Amino acid sequence: MYRALRLLARSRRLVRVPASASTPAPGLGAAAPVPFRPPGAARMASQNSFRVEYDTFGELKVPNDKYYGAQTVRSTMNFKIGGVTERMPIPVIKAFGILKRAAAEVNQDYGLDPKIASAIMKAADEVAEGKLNDHFPLVVWQTGSGTQTNMNVNEVISNRAIEMLGGELGSKKPVHPNDHVNKSQSSNDTFPTAMHIAAALDVHQVLLPGLQKLHDALEAKSKDFAQIIKIGRTHTQDAVPLTLGQEFSGYVQQLKYAMARVQAAMPRIYELAAGGTAVGTGLNTRIGFAEKVAAKVAALTGLPFVTAPNKFEALAAHDALVELSGAMNTTACSLMKIANDIRFLGSGPRSGLGELILPENEPGSSIMPGKVNPTQCEAMTMVAAQVMGNHVAVTVGGSNGHFELNVFKPMMIKNVLHSARLLGDAAVSFTENCVVGIQANQDRIAKLMSESLMLVTALNPHIGYDKAAKIAKTAHKNGSTLKATAVELGYLTAEQFDEWVKPKDMLGPK
Amino acid sequence: MYRALRLLARSRRLVRVPASASTPAPGLGAAAPVPFRPPGAARMASQNSFRVEYDTFGELKVPNDKYYGAQTVRSTMNFKIGGVTERMPIPVIKAFGILKRAAAEVNQDYGLDPKIASAIMKAADEVAEGKLNDHFPLVVWQTGSGTQTNMNVNEVISNRAIEMLGGELGSKKPVHPNDHVNKSQSSNDTFPTAMHIAAALDVHQVLLPGLQKLHDALEAKSKDFAQIIKIGRTHTQDAVPLTLGQEFSGYVQQLKYAMARVQAAMPRIYELAAGGTAVGTGLNTRIGFAEKVAAKVAALTGLPFVTAPNKFEALAAHDALVELSGAMNTTACSLMKIANDIRFLGSGPRSGLGELILPENEPGSSIMPGKVNPTQCEAMTMVAAQVMGNHVAVTVGGSNGHFELNVFKPMMIKNVLHSARLLGDAAVSFTENCVVGIQANQDRIAKLMSESLMLVTALNPHIGYDKAAKIAKTAHKNGSTLKATAVELGYLTAEQFDEWVKPKDMLGPK
Amino acid sequence: MYRALRLLARSRRLVRVPASASTPAPGLGAAAPVPFRPPGAARMASQNSFRVEYDTFGELKVPNDKYYGAQTVRSTMNFKIGGVTERMPIPVIKAFGILKRAAAEVNQDYGLDPKIASAIMKAADEVAEGKLNDHFPLVVWQTGSGTQTNMNVNEVISNRAIEMLGGELGSKKPVHPNDHVNKSQSSNDTFPTAMHIAAALDVHQVLLPGLQKLHDALEAKSKDFAQIIKIGRTHTQDAVPLTLGQEFSGYVQQLKYAMARVQAAMPRIYELAAGGTAVGTGLNTRIGFAEKVAAKVAALTGLPFVTAPNKFEALAAHDALVELSGAMNTTACSLMKIANDIRFLGSGPRSGLGELILPENEPGSSIMPGKVNPTQCEAMTMVAAQVMGNHVAVTVGGSNGHFELNVFKPMMIKNVLHSARLLGDAAVSFTENCVVGIQANQDRIAKLMSESLMLVTALNPHIGYDKAAKIAKTAHKNGSTLKATAVELGYLTAEQFDEWVKPKDMLGPK
Amino acid sequence: MYRALRLLARSRRLVRVPASASTPAPGLGAAAPVPFRPPGAARMASQNSFRVEYDTFGELKVPNDKYYGAQTVRSTMNFKIGGVTERMPIPVIKAFGILKRAAAEVNQDYGLDPKIASAIMKAADEVAEGKLNDHFPLVVWQTGSGTQTNMNVNEVISNRAIEMLGGELGSKKPVHPNDHVNKSQSSNDTFPTAMHIAAALDVHQVLLPGLQKLHDALEAKSKDFAQIIKIGRTHTQDAVPLTLGQEFSGYVQQLKYAMARVQAAMPRIYELAAGGTAVGTGLNTRIGFAEKVAAKVAALTGLPFVTAPNKFEALAAHDALVELSGAMNTTACSLMKIANDIRFLGSGPRSGLGELILPENEPGSSIMPGKVNPTQCEAMTMVAAQVMGNHVAVTVGGSNGHFELNVFKPMMIKNVLHSARLLGDAAVSFTENCVVGIQANQDRIAKLMSESLMLVTALNPHIGYDKAAKIAKTAHKNGSTLKATAVELGYLTAEQFDEWVKPKDMLGPK
Repeated sequence: MYRALRLLARSRRLVRVPASASTPAPGLGAAAPVPFRPPGAARMASQNSFRVEYDTFGELKVPNDKYYGAQTVRSTMNFKIGGVTERMPIPVIKAFGILKRAAAEVNQDYGLDPKIASAIMKAADEVAEGKLNDHFPLVVWQTGSGTQTNMNVNEVISNRAIEMLGGELGSKKPVHPNDHVNKSQSSNDTFPTAMHIAAALDVHQVLLPGLQKLHDALEAKSKDFAQIIKIGRTHTQDAVPLTLGQEFSGYVQQLKYAMARVQAAMPRIYELAAGGTAVGTGLNTRIGFAEKVAAKVAALTGLPFVTAPNKFEALAAHDALVELSGAMNTTACSLMKIANDIRFLGSGPRSGLGELILPENEPGSSIMPGKVNPTQCEAMTMVAAQVMGNHVAVTVGGSNGHFELNVFKPMMIKNVLHSARLLGDAAVSFTENCVVGIQANQDRIAKLMSESLMLVTALNPHIGYDKAAKIAKTAHKNGSTLKATAVELGYLTAEQFDEWVKPKDMLGPK
Repeated sequence: MYRALRLLARSRRLVRVPASASTPAPGLGAAAPVPFRPPGAARMASQNSFRVEYDTFGELKVPNDKYYGAQTVRSTMNFKIGGVTERMPIPVIKAFGILKRAAAEVNQDYGLDPKIASAIMKAADEVAEGKLNDHFPLVVWQTGSGTQTNMNVNEVISNRAIEMLGGELGSKKPVHPNDHVNKSQSSNDTFPTAMHIAAALDVHQVLLPGLQKLHDALEAKSKDFAQIIKIGRTHTQDAVPLTLGQEFSGYVQQLKYAMARVQAAMPRIYELAAGGTAVGTGLNTRIGFAEKVAAKVAALTGLPFVTAPNKFEALAAHDALVELSGAMNTTACSLMKIANDIRFLGSGPRSGLGELILPENEPGSSIMPGKVNPTQCEAMTMVAAQVMGNHVAVTVGGSNGHFELNVFKPMMIKNVLHSARLLGDAAVSFTENCVVGIQANQDRIAKLMSESLMLVTALNPHIGYDKAAKIAKTAHKNGSTLKATAVELGYLTAEQFDEWVKPKDMLGPK
Repeated sequence: MYRALRLLARSRRLVRVPASASTPAPGLGAAAPVPFRPPGAARMASQNSFRVEYDTFGELKVPNDKYYGAQTVRSTMNFKIGGVTERMPIPVIKAFGILKRAAAEVNQDYGLDPKIASAIMKAADEVAEGKLNDHFPLVVWQTGSGTQTNMNVNEVISNRAIEMLGGELGSKKPVHPNDHVNKSQSSNDTFPTAMHIAAALDVHQVLLPGLQKLHDALEAKSKDFAQIIKIGRTHTQDAVPLTLGQEFSGYVQQLKYAMARVQAAMPRIYELAAGGTAVGTGLNTRIGFAEKVAAKVAALTGLPFVTAPNKFEALAAHDALVELSGAMNTTACSLMKIANDIRFLGSGPRSGLGELILPENEPGSSIMPGKVNPTQCEAMTMVAAQVMGNHVAVTVGGSNGHFELNVFKPMMIKNVLHSARLLGDAAVSFTENCVVGIQANQDRIAKLMSESLMLVTALNPHIGYDKAAKIAKTAHKNGSTLKATAVELGYLTAEQFDEWVKPKDMLGPK
Repeated sequence: MYRALRLLARSRRLVRVPASASTPAPGLGAAAPVPFRPPGAARMASQNSFRVEYDTFGELKVPNDKYYGAQTVRSTMNFKIGGVTERMPIPVIKAFGILKRAAAEVNQDYGLDPKIASAIMKAADEVAEGKLNDHFPLVVWQTGSGTQTNMNVNEVISNRAIEMLGGELGSKKPVHPNDHVNKSQSSNDTFPTAMHIAAALDVHQVLLPGLQKLHDALEAKSKDFAQIIKIGRTHTQDAVPLTLGQEFSGYVQQLKYAMARVQAAMPRIYELAAGGTAVGTGLNTRIGFAEKVAAKVAALTGLPFVTAPNKFEALAAHDALVELSGAMNTTACSLMKIANDIRFLGSGPRSGLGELILPENEPGSSIMPGKVNPTQCEAMTMVAAQVMGNHVAVTVGGSNGHFELNVFKPMMIKNVLHSARLLGDAAVSFTENCVVGIQANQDRIAKLMSESLMLVTALNPHIGYDKAAKIAKTAHKNGSTLKATAVELGYLTAEQFDEWVKPKDMLGPK
């Protein structure tokens, strides 16, 4: 057997971790990012050294350069599923940072030692800012409540806070991961809270801006193309005319509604489960805790988060995520339609419809000038297909909750964030690299327009349906023009034809 | 309110059963319905006789007892796909009746001969009332614009109007299917208009009332069960307590939001394409036609229909239906969760959870008393799965429009109406035959509650975490009670246990 | 071959139309079918009269002209979901007829009174032949085990057998629905058995013949078009040439594999659950019963049914149906692709690609001659979308079985049969009304071909890449031909161009 | 506004690239992997320096420590979609390595300079072995043909080969990325070839071994549990008994068939598109090239690859991937069912079914001993939901190919590989961390068994159905045992009861 394959077979689990992960995304002249150095790293030992931490199951070695603890390590041992690309999305981790900070503030109000609270807040801020991303190695495919990620967060914040306060990593003193960082909280309410925060932030920072950008670019094109009259196509077949601007106005409307649909789903995303603790009753919290935490999160994010009116629903069902995913699924349909239209209208250069000239962004082929592959349309339609698939995954997960807890949480939020990010990024890429550069091929458009047989419609009021139909059928049969045929048949003069058949009078009601 | 609509509302369940299914649904002592006799049937010849009608492709024999014409017959010849169960849904036909009536009124305003307009209105009313259901034999799997169904409607209304005016069926005089019934219209704008009318009516007449009914029944149960403390379950495992009323309150919230989600999708369903004609420009309509038709439809139905602000989007994309389907998909997830919970909580009678006693509706087994199969839950979960599947069909269709026309229209509306009807009907059936009769098995609930090890949580503040844990672990190992174990271990007295361990104090924040 | 099956095969299209739909499908001069008269109807009372039957829940009125009994009536009362179009598919009912006949034969071998067994067999044959379709009013949305349909079948066969033997309907004597008709059976094994029989028959009678027919028609076209050289299109853009026959050969391959995929799923469909009874153990059957029943069913149908090797899997999971549905889902992808290609290649008549001339089947528009709407393609692509949706419904149902029984059975088989019927029927319709009539628009194809810039590829070996590229770029810029440009640039003579640039040499490896 | 959030907003695109990617997956005491040093790295300049490369669009700076060239850099500029987690899956890159090596061998046979061919082979081997993973930065969301990844591979192999031969990176001499590495190839045939190789390898290296491992573990449990009689559950309700071994045997059968289904899809995966070049005709290849390349790939991988019999289908449709995804979708249903059963059977410890004792792998809760969260079941069911969603994405992509090329290739293979990896890994994790450690809670099982009312079935032959039913109903009503009730009612003696009611006689046919 082939050496390469034997190697593959022998070392699969190791080698499939992309070594490439260690390299920054390539760019043009971008300065190489300075390797991340966690705060206090100096105090940590080398990569090869370990400290011993423990949980209720016993002791475990923890890498000395990591803030996480025993429960995190245990999860990495028990859930070797999918590798590094399957890690809990960073937006969830950051959302946890925001939540833990908010909870610490409120816990301080209710009596938590200010020194401890303050250290938690600082460490949580670092998590929220993405400074500690390196310390969250767990994959999505863990416990369905996200408990292990909640503990990962608790451990990292605890150890980082301990470090700030001069304590020993892993000692759980003076900042305990459960008693202090997780105070008044349960995985069962914190994880859904982090899901909603992460979803709302990605919607506002990635999805909606991307859709708005695309909307604006399409609207500008719609205006630019307002005077260009072209043939319409229904059933993919020739039909009566409209302007290219009108055609694009349909896309603009789709984008406008896409944003409205996403916005319509947000009120239920803004509801936070925090304060429900283990089963929704709020056991081990104080009256007012839930409301205060939601208010803090709202203040920290600038988004109108509120406490969920019914915590039992907020833990046991994630209908709000299914709903948001549904809005993105509809958006995917819109974008699939638009990108398909643009690539077909831009098909050619000679044997396609050829009405649009799409920007050339990269070599299509070294031999065929004019061959512009509509690669941005292709990326967009692939994204649309992915979002439709993600939506089914979210739907299946959302339908399978049991009793007081839905345990498809990590999978659901992963897919929701995936869809939001892909749609937002693809909308920007599609706009910048395709839409803004689209030009109308006016000669081609005019030619197709003028040759169209269905302009004959305009003659009906003047010579009657039967004669008009005779003209059209004859022209089609002979491959001739309507005008020549009409004159030849003796139904009207060339001057009359020019006066009566005016595509620009066919663009609206009278 | 419009007579037709009142009729619709009053008799919905009856009239939507296709008259063509001449066998009555079986029932207990229900009088057999009088066989439908179409108006003017006396004048028609026997079932075996035919008249000859024609379209631009030539002549065709049409059954003498049918109002439809040549184009309808031609479609039945060209699309032998799926058989009678695949016919265009009756709500679409009725919606067409409403639209054709509205268009005739507006056309009269713009100059259509009042005699003709009036006859069209009367015939259209009969279509809207379901009196002519027998005359719509076409299947969904036809042209993707629904043109053939639009022509079916035009032909039926034309012939019925001709009959009213004493003319000859098939003569197209004095009421022409295209020139008069379809005046100022195209299939491309009428079919999407009928889709939206049908969807809105089914949402208001079937879906929302069903969800409301279920919501109310669950809310009543939630109140009834407010004092019953039970064990919570997370990860399907024993957890801290909540009340049965709290558990049901989560379902109530899900239903409340399900209705909100459907309502959130309606503004875009209320937008009508009528007036866009062939490609969205409104060619061959008069200024104001679109707005007036929408206003008439609104008046006839009592729903806030408006003309679509962008007709290009309204013909070329059906994002609004994808969106509505998405709201129903989320609802399906909610109902799947609720029905699953109820059947598991009602499982037993001896080897299941046994906390709920579900009503017995039919023989489960001739041999096992007490074996109540949760058949209503099963119907509901099957409906939920169907709705999820329908949603994907709608999504695929919605994403595949091209240029000025989406040609998945009949398939899309079929699935949307299917989902609305199934969810609405299932919600009613589930409510009446299951939810209202649910009883709490209080002995069982109390027993499970009192045996639960995690009540030990309440001891933490009194004896500390370590001792509490020791009690729980020991009790679990020995299969004994917490109380006995605690006393045996000498950590507290029986009186103290009773004072400190009170499930009813574990139901909320303090 | 078995009489029932021969009948089935001969009259499939007719008998599967529910007799309850008493209005014949409209057609051209077809004789109206003789209204169905159930055997023994004379002895039944009028439609308005009832008899009283009972089950373990009490008495119920049953229509006198129906063979079903109390449990059927009770189901119609408890499951008012969806109306007549939602009835259990007739193929399931017929499959039950086959199964009940087979079971009666085997039960007779094991000692059932031959007089009773014989009457059951005769009545079961009538069910299998579709003669009693009118007597199965239950909808799919019932108990998830299909118990009520099994009882519906037992009741109908029992009463029909009683009638044959001169007994009183509803007396359960001398043929008891449970003790005799259902002997050695449970709903839990009979329903999945009927599902597999129905699926296998529809696959063999509808799906595979339809696919074969389409395959053959495409193959014939591929041969007809073998010499027509045309431009290829990748990324929807102009590319190097191939023959139209080669293009169609891809479709032929897709169909060939579609059939192979369906066939690959069949071995597990041929496995029958019969003999597993309530939970898969075979309690209350005799050793050998399962194998004998499977052998009988195989003999009756001519298909290689065997007893399922593991009855626990056969009751609790319906992976085999998910698998078959998956094969149909792949087929749907193939057909979507083919139908899309054909409508785009046939788009025009003047402003599209226009390479294919599709048959005109019905008026496209009364005003535009030459406007052929590709309606068969549209029906096909709608069917494809539906099948994809159905597949998700089947998947969700298939994933949600619990313990010893999957209770999504009726929903699953409904969708599988729906997909099989739609695909099979649509393949026939598409073949007969579109594919066989497709013509190549050779002038258009030749024109596009000859104008194509990428024929320049052929010059590379003669004048080098750089000069070839220069020719192409210049021709594209000036809108001129390759030949004129090449000569103008002085790179070669017109004769050399004609000798070197030969599309027919670009159709394969050298 | 909150500082953290402002930071988030400002630096989103940068910070969301997980810095954590630079860290190896954590483990227990595992030696830190030696950082990968690409061969010849010494000769490269520092990370901050660049060289200039060019493509037909102009010059671009390329990082000096990377082997890729201008077209790769250009893609990173044009497709900023999704970040590093969205990179082309490594198995695709490795498959390309295998293909490029095979093509070089064959090209040498047809005359390619052996020195060049040999260098290409060596470089391609390094790609196949994963040594150059770092040099493939492109995301999935690029052109739908995967052209940019093919060029990425060509550039990396070319530069690495140039380096081996002592040339200058980026000079394209003496090894040209197009003329030599891509010789006789097109992206349109190489990318689908790599897709099939990657899918086949992952199926054989990850998916099937994982399923086999789980199958074997379940089979061992089925044998271990062969004598444990337990209550059956249908409709989630108590039913007649079976053994725990029988119950598990159903799972074993599901796994056995899961493997069979995947295997059934493989013949069409083994077909390679290589040799079809741009549109399937094989333009610019030599006769025999396709067959030889397939044979080489087969030899290199040990898998029975062959050349696709129809290259047009192989480029334009990816039905084979839809089919394979369908097999994995069915597998997902099986695993969802099994994992659901196991968590419900293991629910408790006191208020659930409690028949199984699942291994404790991590702290469930610090307070509730015995609370074993079935986390492996949760990971598995989340994976199942994801695979179902991935399948829809693959389906949508597979249905949307046009003309000579499907342009959803990268998205399709990403999802197929994702599903294969997740299922394979999850099967191993579920096996090792759950299945092998499952114990039967025999006391609980026996208790539920003996209390079951439906054992009364066994009395039917002895005292008749009516008396048996009376016993059961009375026992249910009074909450008493069957035996006590039977004796109390005077129908039989305690001895008779013990003799007649033997669960172990209810486990099969007689």
